[in-house]
Amino acid sequence: MQKEVLYHRPKNNFAYAYDEKTLHIRLRTKKDDVQSVELIYGDPYDWKDGTWQIKKSKMIKSGSDQWFDYYMAEVTPEYRRLRYGFVLMNDNEKLVFTEKGFYEEAPTDDTAYYFCFPFLNKSDVFTAPDWVRNTVWYQIFPERFANGDLANDPEGALPWGSAEPTPGNFFGGDFEGVIQHLDHLSNLGITGIYFTPIFKAKSNHKYDTIDYFEIDPQFGTKETFRRLVDACHEKGIKVMLDAVFNHSGFYFGPFQDVLINQENSPYKNWFHLHGFPVVTEPKPNYDTFAFEKSMPKLNTENPEVKDYLLKVARYWVEEFNIDGWRLDVANEVDHQFWREFRRTVKSVKPEVYILGEIWHDSMPWLQGDQFDAVMNYPFTSAALDFFAKEKITAIDFADRMTNVLQSYPDNVNKVSFNLLGSHDTPRVLTVAKQNKERVRQLYALMLSFPGTPCIYYGDEVGMTGEMDPGCRKCMEWDEEKQDRSLFEDIHKLIRLRSDHPAFGNDGSLSFIKTSNTPGMLAFKKTSSDETLLFAFNTESQSIILEKALFEGFPNTINLWTGEIISPELAVVKSNDFIILKLR
Amino acid sequence: MQKEVLYHRPKNNFAYAYDEKTLHIRLRTKKDDVQSVELIYGDPYDWKDGTWQIKKSKMIKSGSDQWFDYYMAEVTPEYRRLRYGFVLMNDNEKLVFTEKGFYEEAPTDDTAYYFCFPFLNKSDVFTAPDWVRNTVWYQIFPERFANGDLANDPEGALPWGSAEPTPGNFFGGDFEGVIQHLDHLSNLGITGIYFTPIFKAKSNHKYDTIDYFEIDPQFGTKETFRRLVDACHEKGIKVMLDAVFNHSGFYFGPFQDVLINQENSPYKNWFHLHGFPVVTEPKPNYDTFAFEKSMPKLNTENPEVKDYLLKVARYWVEEFNIDGWRLDVANEVDHQFWREFRRTVKSVKPEVYILGEIWHDSMPWLQGDQFDAVMNYPFTSAALDFFAKEKITAIDFADRMTNVLQSYPDNVNKVSFNLLGSHDTPRVLTVAKQNKERVRQLYALMLSFPGTPCIYYGDEVGMTGEMDPGCRKCMEWDEEKQDRSLFEDIHKLIRLRSDHPAFGNDGSLSFIKTSNTPGMLAFKKTSSDETLLFAFNTESQSIILEKALFEGFPNTINLWTGEIISPELAVVKSNDFIILKLR
Repeated sequence: MQKEVLYHRPKNNFAYAYDEKTLHIRLRTKKDDVQSVELIYGDPYDWKDGTWQIKKSKMIKSGSDQWFDYYMAEVTPEYRRLRYGFVLMNDNEKLVFTEKGFYEEAPTDDTAYYFCFPFLNKSDVFTAPDWVRNTVWYQIFPERFANGDLANDPEGALPWGSAEPTPGNFFGGDFEGVIQHLDHLSNLGITGIYFTPIFKAKSNHKYDTIDYFEIDPQFGTKETFRRLVDACHEKGIKVMLDAVFNHSGFYFGPFQDVLINQENSPYKNWFHLHGFPVVTEPKPNYDTFAFEKSMPKLNTENPEVKDYLLKVARYWVEEFNIDGWRLDVANEVDHQFWREFRRTVKSVKPEVYILGEIWHDSMPWLQGDQFDAVMNYPFTSAALDFFAKEKITAIDFADRMTNVLQSYPDNVNKVSFNLLGSHDTPRVLTVAKQNKERVRQLYALMLSFPGTPCIYYGDEVGMTGEMDPGCRKCMEWDEEKQDRSLFEDIHKLIRLRSDHPAFGNDGSLSFIKTSNTPGMLAFKKTSSDETLLFAFNTESQSIILEKALFEGFPNTINLWTGEIISPELAVVKSNDFIILKLR
Repeated sequence: MQKEVLYHRPKNNFAYAYDEKTLHIRLRTKKDDVQSVELIYGDPYDWKDGTWQIKKSKMIKSGSDQWFDYYMAEVTPEYRRLRYGFVLMNDNEKLVFTEKGFYEEAPTDDTAYYFCFPFLNKSDVFTAPDWVRNTVWYQIFPERFANGDLANDPEGALPWGSAEPTPGNFFGGDFEGVIQHLDHLSNLGITGIYFTPIFKAKSNHKYDTIDYFEIDPQFGTKETFRRLVDACHEKGIKVMLDAVFNHSGFYFGPFQDVLINQENSPYKNWFHLHGFPVVTEPKPNYDTFAFEKSMPKLNTENPEVKDYLLKVARYWVEEFNIDGWRLDVANEVDHQFWREFRRTVKSVKPEVYILGEIWHDSMPWLQGDQFDAVMNYPFTSAALDFFAKEKITAIDFADRMTNVLQSYPDNVNKVSFNLLGSHDTPRVLTVAKQNKERVRQLYALMLSFPGTPCIYYGDEVGMTGEMDPGCRKCMEWDEEKQDRSLFEDIHKLIRLRSDHPAFGNDGSLSFIKTSNTPGMLAFKKTSSDETLLFAFNTESQSIILEKALFEGFPNTINLWTGEIISPELAVVKSNDFIILKLR
């Protein structure tokens, strides 16, 4: 066995509290190097006659990727304390792997050899709100969803859909428009809306906040917003707002005060200024988002700024009863700030969902003290690479997603925010080069994948658009121009997801890797009630599913058609998918 | 190159802020598999003509252990943001390693491939108090250090040193005794005292607190304690107390209230009770430390308990100006509690040192939000295994300590609390089977090793003792019975440590591995001013140091004797050590 490839460190994705009683322990080994793994463990203080008392438990192989196999075990230690190690076996060798190194036999004269999960403290358990696991999100860019009240249109607003979107134009989308179209969402099966920013700002995207305590007048008033939230709640739809706390807008009062009063401004420590006078040209002499002079970075380490932003965070929860905060550029703000943010928000309403925008490895923010989830862009890119861009095989997809899933605890994966596109990316149908069958496959994938799916407004009716501003077109409300069949398919997938426990987050996923059909992605999802088989065929011929997949299940139901079929007849047509319940 | 062995994850010991401007990036590779590594990096938003702008920096090999080589680079990104990857080279191959996998050439069409350190926020930088790096600690078990006031002796106290220590006997050690003997510490060069618990308790070790706001009367009064702290401060000695917050003592008021009033006790949620009536026999039906019924575990998740303990933490800092808290059984208390503990204590006095008792991998507590350091028992065990127990070779020692040093950031290593023994272990001279030469070597090692050394009371004058209670004998104050020569040697080592920047934490350590002399441990320590060579010979013959060690340094000073010697004459006698300044 190759010892150097073994990896375990007793925290994060490798050792974590799944709930108040249960620990998950994981181990990474070199691919195909080990035949079986046992977890050996005990209470750190459980001794008898000078011998530490060891229990054993077989670890299950929970996944494989290009380089590694992953093993996991679930334990519920009676006294919530654990010392543990691993026994690895293959034909030639038996190896005991501990924190202090390798042994032929498990030492019992001391516990100090072993990895330690010292105590399962409830307050350290990662816990996202329960409702999130079953939520299907819909992202609304309010300027472009629906114009329900012409009276509040900004100056120069263009008639709905009369022009291509540009970085600067306006079409008058507002809250009244959302209220009027909530049935569209209900009919689709949506149970949560993520709104990009709604606070007073200058641009059409509103990421350049002027006042965090005011609704942008083009969207309505606080009264309209209150009606909107209430209307959503009546329909069982949660409301999540976008918190742009990394930076303010150029016209944010405190920044304007700095530009006017310079060194005498009481707000000079609200930003990261490099000197006086503060200038914007030729280059800003203050920290910004990216190199964007109109987005000065806020000094979230300054207690006054912290106090201001935390008041904002409380205000919209307390006064308007919102259900979630999505945190823009969350990775560039300090961890200390987010810890206080979580404490503040959860003290007002424990069930608020906190979602960070992070595109890369996010483990440091998902340890229970900061976020409930991050936007799962690694899922987006792997899914698009396979189905839309045809850059990778099904096995590559499975390897990449296994790697992502193994990088986080299971309870984190179940609330990961999965998306196929957003206001920051080209639309999924455009990426798929107008191939609607592939888009249908992508939705079937996203709606059955661990995590909570999010549909970008308009994607459900087949809208197109390149990278922004192209992806920010006015919502198509003319049913003649909508792809109603895609809408119905997504609706059906959402219904299946809520009807079948194994479809959603009660199902545990295992990929099926078939190297002879590199264009077919397949996986099983298993809950305590049922086993579902998903297969997505991107090859140009139909594929007959291998009999081995049905072992132990004499027949199956095709969940899409309701037909009972025998395994011999299970075929996935080209560019189609199949969802079978094995019985 | 073997890709599976490469390891990097963008946080903790692999990517961290060394200070407000500097990032350290580390990479682990398979041993002897790679010839050179370059860090490739850039600002995430620095694009030119559609190409991400990449800089390069050679990584230095910072260590090797049994299985791995470790590389590191220091970067000071202009805008405090970093995306990065690694280019690995050997004779056959060039490999680009990123968060998203391996490439032949570094991709420049997207930054999403790369690892990310999104922003160096000051408030997230791990910062221990400055004074700690230069502190030499002395651990006092107050019942056994000195009896300065017979009037406060507990009932049945035995005459000083008149009997072997038992789990239950008393000898009357007190604060007055410490005050009277501060010169002993000053003469040794001590600049910090760590006191095991001093609060009102029943046992002689006082880990079973009755009242966290009261001094145990056998040690004196609050007034005596105030005089003690002031006297220490006058001599430039810091004072650290022991906080036993994982559990209380059996006679702690709230626990007694629970035993008496059971379900009606207002304190019933202060502990983890499994049912009523609360009983201690035959087994306690409440959580305890280990299985010790007299030490009920405190419910640190209960806001009342938290409030009480945080008041304790503030009180002794605010009222008595103590300089540090050592946290008993720190690993079994929740992280959330320690985060609040840190905030509370540092808000009162930012320069307080927070030291956790953790015997295993401690990275989760050393991310800047909880502790400043942990007790470095892995150092203790490796050092004793080599010098005292002769169970491992010098190379094993170097491998084990390289592994430990590479498991934590450099700024964490510099304040690690190194010890050769404590009230919880046999004394070092006993472990070394009375071999004083080995003990001398152990002190030379500990005093030159990264971290801050701690001497257990009496070890400096050659006291012996087995595992407790044996290691808790009365301090030997009869100079005739003290090993004064050991005292003088330790004093000299402490002086060298403070006189030579490279001796202490300004020196960066690199092991020299010589496989032909498995009993010789050698390393260099280099600061910007000087290079020191340390060699410890445990073989039975003298060893002539290899000339290669002196390359670039025509002569050397023996720091112990002050002699200038030429490299040819550099010899380390059997069971001796040598400390050379290379020139």
